[in-house]
Amino acid sequence: MNFVGIDIPIDMNATMRRRGELTLETDRRHLMHPGTHASDHASGELDARLMTRAQGIRIEDHAGRSYIDAFAGLYCVNIGYGREEMADAIAAQTRRLSFYHTYAGFSNDPAVELSRRLIEEWAPPGMKKVFYGMSGSDANETQVKLAWYYNNVLGRPRKKKIIARQRSYHGSGIATGSLTGQPKFHAGFDLPMPQVLHTASPDFYRDARPGASEAEFVADCVEHLEQLIAREGADTIAAFFGEPVMGSGGIVPPPSGYWPAIQAVLERHDILFAVDEVVCGFGRLGSRTGSEHYGLAPDLMSVAKGLTSGYLPLSGVIVSERVWDVIERGSREQGAMNHGWTYSGHPVCAAAALTNLDIIEREQLVSNAAEVGAYFQARLHEAFDAHPLVGNVRGVGMLAALELMAGKTERRPFPAAAKVSQRVAQAALARGLIVRALGTNDIVGFAPPLIATRADIDEIVAIARHALHDVSDALSAP
Amino acid sequence: MNFVGIDIPIDMNATMRRRGELTLETDRRHLMHPGTHASDHASGELDARLMTRAQGIRIEDHAGRSYIDAFAGLYCVNIGYGREEMADAIAAQTRRLSFYHTYAGFSNDPAVELSRRLIEEWAPPGMKKVFYGMSGSDANETQVKLAWYYNNVLGRPRKKKIIARQRSYHGSGIATGSLTGQPKFHAGFDLPMPQVLHTASPDFYRDARPGASEAEFVADCVEHLEQLIAREGADTIAAFFGEPVMGSGGIVPPPSGYWPAIQAVLERHDILFAVDEVVCGFGRLGSRTGSEHYGLAPDLMSVAKGLTSGYLPLSGVIVSERVWDVIERGSREQGAMNHGWTYSGHPVCAAAALTNLDIIEREQLVSNAAEVGAYFQARLHEAFDAHPLVGNVRGVGMLAALELMAGKTERRPFPAAAKVSQRVAQAALARGLIVRALGTNDIVGFAPPLIATRADIDEIVAIARHALHDVSDALSAP
Ligand SMILES: Cc1ncc(COP(=O)(O)O)c(C=O)c1O
Ligand SMILES: Cc1ncc(COP(=O)(O)O)c(C=O)c1O
Repeated sequence: MNFVGIDIPIDMNATMRRRGELTLETDRRHLMHPGTHASDHASGELDARLMTRAQGIRIEDHAGRSYIDAFAGLYCVNIGYGREEMADAIAAQTRRLSFYHTYAGFSNDPAVELSRRLIEEWAPPGMKKVFYGMSGSDANETQVKLAWYYNNVLGRPRKKKIIARQRSYHGSGIATGSLTGQPKFHAGFDLPMPQVLHTASPDFYRDARPGASEAEFVADCVEHLEQLIAREGADTIAAFFGEPVMGSGGIVPPPSGYWPAIQAVLERHDILFAVDEVVCGFGRLGSRTGSEHYGLAPDLMSVAKGLTSGYLPLSGVIVSERVWDVIERGSREQGAMNHGWTYSGHPVCAAAALTNLDIIEREQLVSNAAEVGAYFQARLHEAFDAHPLVGNVRGVGMLAALELMAGKTERRPFPAAAKVSQRVAQAALARGLIVRALGTNDIVGFAPPLIATRADIDEIVAIARHALHDVSDALSAP
Repeated sequence: MNFVGIDIPIDMNATMRRRGELTLETDRRHLMHPGTHASDHASGELDARLMTRAQGIRIEDHAGRSYIDAFAGLYCVNIGYGREEMADAIAAQTRRLSFYHTYAGFSNDPAVELSRRLIEEWAPPGMKKVFYGMSGSDANETQVKLAWYYNNVLGRPRKKKIIARQRSYHGSGIATGSLTGQPKFHAGFDLPMPQVLHTASPDFYRDARPGASEAEFVADCVEHLEQLIAREGADTIAAFFGEPVMGSGGIVPPPSGYWPAIQAVLERHDILFAVDEVVCGFGRLGSRTGSEHYGLAPDLMSVAKGLTSGYLPLSGVIVSERVWDVIERGSREQGAMNHGWTYSGHPVCAAAALTNLDIIEREQLVSNAAEVGAYFQARLHEAFDAHPLVGNVRGVGMLAALELMAGKTERRPFPAAAKVSQRVAQAALARGLIVRALGTNDIVGFAPPLIATRADIDEIVAIARHALHDVSDALSAP
C-alpha cells in the first residue's frame, strides 16, 4: 500500500521495467532503427522491446519477459547466446592486439588462422583466398566489384551486368539493395542500379504453373534465365548471385535439380557464380555450407552471420582460384587493387570467429543441425500440413517457413494490409517465442540456434501452433 | 652449436619469429589484403609483418620488433591499444547480451545510451538521431541513400547528384569509392557512378594559383563549385560531401574562410551538407568533432574510427532534425524505409564505444589532443620547415603531414615511380616508427593516438627526421 492507496509491487522487476521504459523513451528520441517505420517508432505506436540479456536459445527483455529465440537473432546466433568461451576469447584478443589494419602487408594471427580454416576446412574445393569485411552487404558489394574487376582484367569491359533473383535478399546498400529482388528495398532509393537484372525466383510453391512438376518448374526457371541472357547478350553479363536457400525472400529451398541446371547455364555463358552463403553458411542447413549441401562450385562466395554467430561483425568473400588468378594478373598489369575497409581482417572479430568455429566443431553443431533439423521439419509438417491457414510448410535443416493462405486449396493469399504473418509473429512474441514475418505476404520464418534440442523444437512448434490459433481465432471472430 | 655446425640462438624470440614466418606463409596463401598488390604479396615480394601485440602507443611484430604507432592504426586508435577497461567492458556485454538486432522495434541499452551521448554530448547542435553501421564506408553510403530518399519525399526526384571533392577519401564501396576523389580507387571498377561529381580540393599548397592568397584561393574553390552547380543545375544536386580536414587525400586542413564560404553556397542552392567525420571525430583535431572545430552545421554526419578507437567495428550516421523530419514524413506517406544492416546497433560494439567515450572524457583526451597537438605541430615545423625535401608542413591537432618535393622552391614533385614517401615510411618502420605514405605522391602522414605525451612527440619527430635523412642520403648517393 502506498500513499494514494494503490498497490505497487516495489520489486526489482518493477524498477528494471521502469528503467527500461525510460531507456525506450530515449531510444524513440535518438536511435534510428534499421528497416523500421520512423514515425510509428518515434511516436511510440510501434511495439518496442529492450533486450537486456540472453543465454543459449533464450533472450530476456527489460520487463523480465523471456523468449525462445527461434530466429537466432537474424539467422546468425548459431552457437546460442552468452557463451563464456566467446567472451573470454574476445577479451583475450582485445588485451593482446585490440586492432591493427591489414593494408600494405600487415597481418595478424587470428585473421590468418581463420583464413586457413575457412579455405581448408569449411569452403568447397577450388577456393583460395579470403577477403574480410564486417557485413553480408559489404561482402556482396565486394563480390560485385571483384566481378567487374575480373572482366576488366580479361579485357571484357562490356561484361558487367549482374543477375540476381526476384525476392532474393543480398543486403541494403546501393549495389546490394539493387541485387535484392524485393521492390520494398528499391522504393524511395531509385534502385535497382541499371547494371542489375532480376530473373525468376526458384519458388515452386508460389510460382510454378498449375500442375507443373518440380522438373518442369526448373525448366521454366532455366528458360527465364536463358531468355534474359539472350536478350542482354551473354557478353554483357558478369555474374549471377544466388543464396543456396533463399532466406529473407521467404525461406525457399530450391526445387530438386535447380542448381545443377542453373550452374550449367552459367558455365555455358562464362558467367561467374557468386554464391551468397550469409544465411546458409556454418551449419544452418545441416551442412557446412549451402554450397556443400547442393554441390555448388562458387567462383565467389560471401559469408557472414554464422561465421561469428553474430557475437561481433565479420564477413568474408571467399575467392576461387579461377578468380584469384585473374586478380593476381591484374595486379601485375595495373598495380595494387584499391579496395578495402579499415576493419578488414580485424583481429578481435577474427578471434571471435575462430572460437565460434571451435564450438561448432567440438559440439558437432553441423550434424546436430542435420539431425535435430530433420526432426524440426518433420514436426512442422505434422503440426501444420493440415492447418487450414497454412498453404505450405518447407525448409532444410534449421531453416523453415510456413506460408499462410486465406484460401489454402486455391492458394489465395491474405490481403497484404491484413498483416497476417506479422500478427502471428506478434502472437508468438506474446507467448514467449520469436519467429519472423518474412518477405512479401505472408510467411512465418524459423531459424533456431543450432544448439536447439528436440525438446526445444517441441516447445517452439507448440508455441507456434498456439500463436497461429490466436490469429485464426481473431480472424474468424465476427 | 647444433649438429651442422651453425649457431642457432634457441630462444623465445627465435621460436616466435619462426612461428610468425610460417603464419606469414599461410597469410600469403589464403588472405586477400585490402589495398594490397595481389601478386607482390602472394609471391612474398612485399614486406610483410605480423602484428602480435600492442599497448598504449606501441605495437610489436612477430620478430619482436617494437614500433611507435604514429598513425594510430588508421587514424583510429585514439585511446591507444590494449586497454584493460575496454576488454572488460566488451567481455561483460558479451556475457550479458552478445547480440540482438534492432529491427522492428527491438533495442538494447548500450545502443540507446550511445545515441543519447552522441546527440547530447558530442554532435553539434541541431542533430537528432543516430543510425548505426560498422564502417566509415557504410555510413557514407547510408548518407547517400538518405539524401536520395529525402529528395524523393520532398517530391524532387531529379535532385540526386552528389558532389564530393577531388582527392577526398570516403570509402571504397561502389557508391563510396565513387565519392572518393582519387582515380586509383576508380580504376578497374568502372567508377565513379554517374551520379557523383567532383569539385576542387581545398589544397592551398598544391592547387592555389601562384601568388594567390588563402582568401583568393577560397574564392577560386567557391567559383569552381558554383560553376559545377550552374552547369548541372542546382535542382539536380542532392548533397555535398566533405571531410572537415581531408584525410587520406593528403591531410589537408582547409584554408581559412573555406568552410563558411562553401556552406553559404550549399545553403543558397538547398544542397544537403554531408560531413564525413570518420577521421576528424572524437578528438583528432583537438575538438570534439571537425564540425565543432570549423563551426559546421551538418545535415548528415558520418562517424566511425575514433568512435570505438578501432577496438570493434562501429560507425554511425548522425541525422539532423531537418533531415529527420522528412524521413518521418516519408514513413507516414510510404511506410517503413527499408534500409539497414544485421549488425546495426550491435550491443557489444556500442558498449565498446561507451567505454571508449568514458576514457576520452575522463582522461580529457580532446584537450590533450589540442595541447599536445599544438606542441606536435610546432615541433614538426621546427624540424622540417627548412628541410630541403619538405615542401610543406601542415596539420591540426593530432593530424599532420609533410609534403615532400624534389625541388622545394619551385614545388617540383618527385616522379611517382620513385615512391619517395613510401621509402620514408619504410625507413621509419626500420627505425621503429609507423607513419603513412598518403594520397597522390608524396605525402607522409602522422596521426598519433591522442594519449601521446610531449615526450612521445619528441621521439616521433626525431625518428621521422632520421628516416627522412636515410632517404635523402640514398637519393643523393651517386
Ligand atoms: C542472404 C543474405 N545476404 C546478405 C545479407 C546482408 O547482410 P548484412 O545485414 O550483414 O549486411 C543478409 C542479411 O540478412 C542475407 O540474409
Ligand atoms: C574520411 C574517411 N571516410 C570514410 C572512410 C572509410 O572508412 P572504412 O574504411 O571504415 O570503410 C575512411 C577510411 O579511412 C576515411 O578516412
